[in-house]
Amino acid sequence: MAIPPSNDWRFRLHEIIYESNTRAGKAFDVGLLIAIFTSILIVMLDSVASIHQHYGKLLHTLEWGYTALFTIEYILRLVSIKRPILYVVSLLGIIDLIALIPSYLSIFFIGAQSLLVFRALRLLRVFRIFKLGHFLTEINFLKEALKGSVRKISVFLLTVLTLTVILGSIMYLVEKRENGFSNIPESVYWAIVTITTVGYGDISPVTPMGKFVASVVMLIGYAIIAVPTGIITHDIAMAARQRKDLPEACPSCGREGHEADALFCKYCGSSLFR
Amino acid sequence: MAIPPSNDWRFRLHEIIYESNTRAGKAFDVGLLIAIFTSILIVMLDSVASIHQHYGKLLHTLEWGYTALFTIEYILRLVSIKRPILYVVSLLGIIDLIALIPSYLSIFFIGAQSLLVFRALRLLRVFRIFKLGHFLTEINFLKEALKGSVRKISVFLLTVLTLTVILGSIMYLVEKRENGFSNIPESVYWAIVTITTVGYGDISPVTPMGKFVASVVMLIGYAIIAVPTGIITHDIAMAARQRKDLPEACPSCGREGHEADALFCKYCGSSLFR
Amino acid sequence: MAIPPSNDWRFRLHEIIYESNTRAGKAFDVGLLIAIFTSILIVMLDSVASIHQHYGKLLHTLEWGYTALFTIEYILRLVSIKRPILYVVSLLGIIDLIALIPSYLSIFFIGAQSLLVFRALRLLRVFRIFKLGHFLTEINFLKEALKGSVRKISVFLLTVLTLTVILGSIMYLVEKRENGFSNIPESVYWAIVTITTVGYGDISPVTPMGKFVASVVMLIGYAIIAVPTGIITHDIAMAARQRKDLPEACPSCGREGHEADALFCKYCGSSLFR
Amino acid sequence: MAIPPSNDWRFRLHEIIYESNTRAGKAFDVGLLIAIFTSILIVMLDSVASIHQHYGKLLHTLEWGYTALFTIEYILRLVSIKRPILYVVSLLGIIDLIALIPSYLSIFFIGAQSLLVFRALRLLRVFRIFKLGHFLTEINFLKEALKGSVRKISVFLLTVLTLTVILGSIMYLVEKRENGFSNIPESVYWAIVTITTVGYGDISPVTPMGKFVASVVMLIGYAIIAVPTGIITHDIAMAARQRKDLPEACPSCGREGHEADALFCKYCGSSLFR
Repeated sequence: MAIPPSNDWRFRLHEIIYESNTRAGKAFDVGLLIAIFTSILIVMLDSVASIHQHYGKLLHTLEWGYTALFTIEYILRLVSIKRPILYVVSLLGIIDLIALIPSYLSIFFIGAQSLLVFRALRLLRVFRIFKLGHFLTEINFLKEALKGSVRKISVFLLTVLTLTVILGSIMYLVEKRENGFSNIPESVYWAIVTITTVGYGDISPVTPMGKFVASVVMLIGYAIIAVPTGIITHDIAMAARQRKDLPEACPSCGREGHEADALFCKYCGSSLFR
Repeated sequence: MAIPPSNDWRFRLHEIIYESNTRAGKAFDVGLLIAIFTSILIVMLDSVASIHQHYGKLLHTLEWGYTALFTIEYILRLVSIKRPILYVVSLLGIIDLIALIPSYLSIFFIGAQSLLVFRALRLLRVFRIFKLGHFLTEINFLKEALKGSVRKISVFLLTVLTLTVILGSIMYLVEKRENGFSNIPESVYWAIVTITTVGYGDISPVTPMGKFVASVVMLIGYAIIAVPTGIITHDIAMAARQRKDLPEACPSCGREGHEADALFCKYCGSSLFR
Repeated sequence: MAIPPSNDWRFRLHEIIYESNTRAGKAFDVGLLIAIFTSILIVMLDSVASIHQHYGKLLHTLEWGYTALFTIEYILRLVSIKRPILYVVSLLGIIDLIALIPSYLSIFFIGAQSLLVFRALRLLRVFRIFKLGHFLTEINFLKEALKGSVRKISVFLLTVLTLTVILGSIMYLVEKRENGFSNIPESVYWAIVTITTVGYGDISPVTPMGKFVASVVMLIGYAIIAVPTGIITHDIAMAARQRKDLPEACPSCGREGHEADALFCKYCGSSLFR
Repeated sequence: MAIPPSNDWRFRLHEIIYESNTRAGKAFDVGLLIAIFTSILIVMLDSVASIHQHYGKLLHTLEWGYTALFTIEYILRLVSIKRPILYVVSLLGIIDLIALIPSYLSIFFIGAQSLLVFRALRLLRVFRIFKLGHFLTEINFLKEALKGSVRKISVFLLTVLTLTVILGSIMYLVEKRENGFSNIPESVYWAIVTITTVGYGDISPVTPMGKFVASVVMLIGYAIIAVPTGIITHDIAMAARQRKDLPEACPSCGREGHEADALFCKYCGSSLFR
């Protein structure tokens, strides 16, 4: 694995690894995704006791193969850009490193291999797949729409969290320790389980008063689930409108709001293209 | 069951079996639906141990009756079209065959009869009922609207699946095998149960740290349920708009798709109102 | 309880019992609602074993009091309209009768009193309360909006039911009887519990394959919950639009779509009122 | 803690405690929020048995420290306004007092300290944080939008509650006491757990008939969850529209509220564009 001798060589490598416009770049992306999928599959299968017993050695060998592969990929990523530090400290760079370390750690520390599950984080690269298909418009559209919602959703989540702390604390008083509500953090956990309508049933009210409070919590959860939905629906509609409005304003009358396929201004009738 | 002697006879048969414009065609559709419903009811009832014990023989006879009926129907479907292979390889054709095979297999292999449950797939023909009623507009409208959502929903589902693999893997590390999270696939299953707010409670976190991670998963699920809703709501609104716009066709160039407030044709620039 | 001697007397009684414009009519409605609430409360309390033991006799007496009261009300309803049969066969009339019968039956048959729970059906009269408040606009608006959704929602529910029968049947094959999926109806019940994201956990998959199928069912349920929401949201928006659009079309240019408070046409500028 | 000698001093104190425009006011708000957070954290930790055993004394001391701090804050709030009674009887004032009393009560009554959980109510002050950030627009927008929904949502919740009482009562008849549906209130609790799709599974139907009724309840819950969502989504869209329309004011008459595509003022009929 020699360091590329010329800048030209480095440029080509950069195009293959970081871009996906060229045929080689696309092939690299597809290959990498397959490698990530299969490597995670191996970690998953190895965690199943019965499979580990029978195929443990094979999976172990494969794991080291993938570790070697990903180490080479990591080095190539470093050498193919001018300032490697930018990649090292980027989110994807950190994830790539975290996916490598456990294997090497396992040489010195027994059990470190269980950290291999963090290799699942590399799945985040899956969103690169959209660069290959025709999903880019959809992805960008959703990103645009949800960006506007982030603030409102966080206001909403803060309100929900405040509610769960208050309701959980009250429930801790109403139900007693012996009924599963053994402390306030546990009761807040129960309130989250209930208000999100998950409802495991590992902790559930026993006393009539507790069931009454729980009913109130459930009805609150049932009614306020509508709020984030309303917010996101509205922001998607807004984003769709904006996207449609962007390309055109009539050069004659200056009015906007023409559809993407309009050739003439719908207000004054003059051509939209000069 | 003789092969129809003339093309004319075959044409009439085709109209009855495949179309539903004529009175005979409608009667056939209704009769077939009733037969499918009752045949599935019989399979369902036969699966109940206590009913099987008392009425097993009767149900067995009825099952063979329906098998005979559906075999005749299958043959008629084959002979009434020019190129039967098109029906055989179509989705409904395959389902119809799958619904027949188990009965015949059960002659040679004991237990094959349990495959009769696949007869439930024939229920998909239920959507033919809409051809009979006035639901066609609604069905087409929903189909139109959801067609636009498929891509965005699949981007969403891929994101959710990626999240569940990552969160499930982390949970496998946090909670230990003895707490039910016995391997990563199991943990991913738990993450899906939680993020979709189903919450069986067959696996649920035990340690404080696990409960904290679970709370995060639940709140994520609670917040992102709004995304598909927003997408579909928007696409339904778009589909409704388009449908409404349809009748407005430019009197000059005849092209459609103008917005409700348009004064001039956006394609040719001539006034929409004469 | 004499029959009213004159039509005038009957007319006044009708106004009190059936209408709520007069002060007496409103008082009657409020009184009746309080009576219904408390009578249902008594039936509910009486069903609690510990309360029945201590206050059973008191509650029993009260129940007979309410039965007498509602019997008088029923007779008054009969005598105060010209054609009592119309009330007897109306939905509310049948409910009122069902709420009365159990008490009288309990004289002859032991246990018939448990049918008193049907008195809860009288709660449907609670919607009369909106006639008293200012909720009528909201009620009518929602009714209007949901009327348009009924068809689309029933198409949706039929699709969901078909899905649950098919998925439940497959699950019955995948998981075995010993895992709780003891017959197909039970498996279909499980599919409904899962697809609606209720998730009791009384029946849950045990085998890896079953967990995989269950995950698919959950994700389907998670994705399609958006469909009825989208439908209803759209229909509410449509109903709101229609309500707003109704009053105005410009008398000059005939264009519609003016807001409720518009005085002049926004397209041609001429007055909307001649 | 002497009473402020001059009105000027009182005015400054008022600005710091009640307002957040000045630097000191902001610092006070941030400090108070941190104090509330940590004080609630202490109460939560103290409720965990194992932590109480090891650090009980430390936490007890800290609790008294916070009680002293909040007592000083309470007194300062009283002295810094002209009519302290307005603060005492305000919602936040009552909450602040409730957060203080348990500590003092615990001197005289053993166990009163458990009421300290009500300190969680002070979390409601968290919404003051938005005054510090840029979330005010979002908060106001959501408040505006949800104000219009309150009536419709309460009509919806009343309908749901009526449904749960009726369905719960029927279920009490169908399933028997020995199956967990031990009385009507319990059955109504089950109906709420089911219709909101929480589904703990602490009570679940056992008989086939009960499972059938439960399926109906679940499908009802699945279909009607869309109603509040539709309502809130619509009201958010309406609120957004109103906000957006604000800036467009007619240059002739100055009135606002014109639609985006209006060419002429809908009030005075003069052109909106000069």
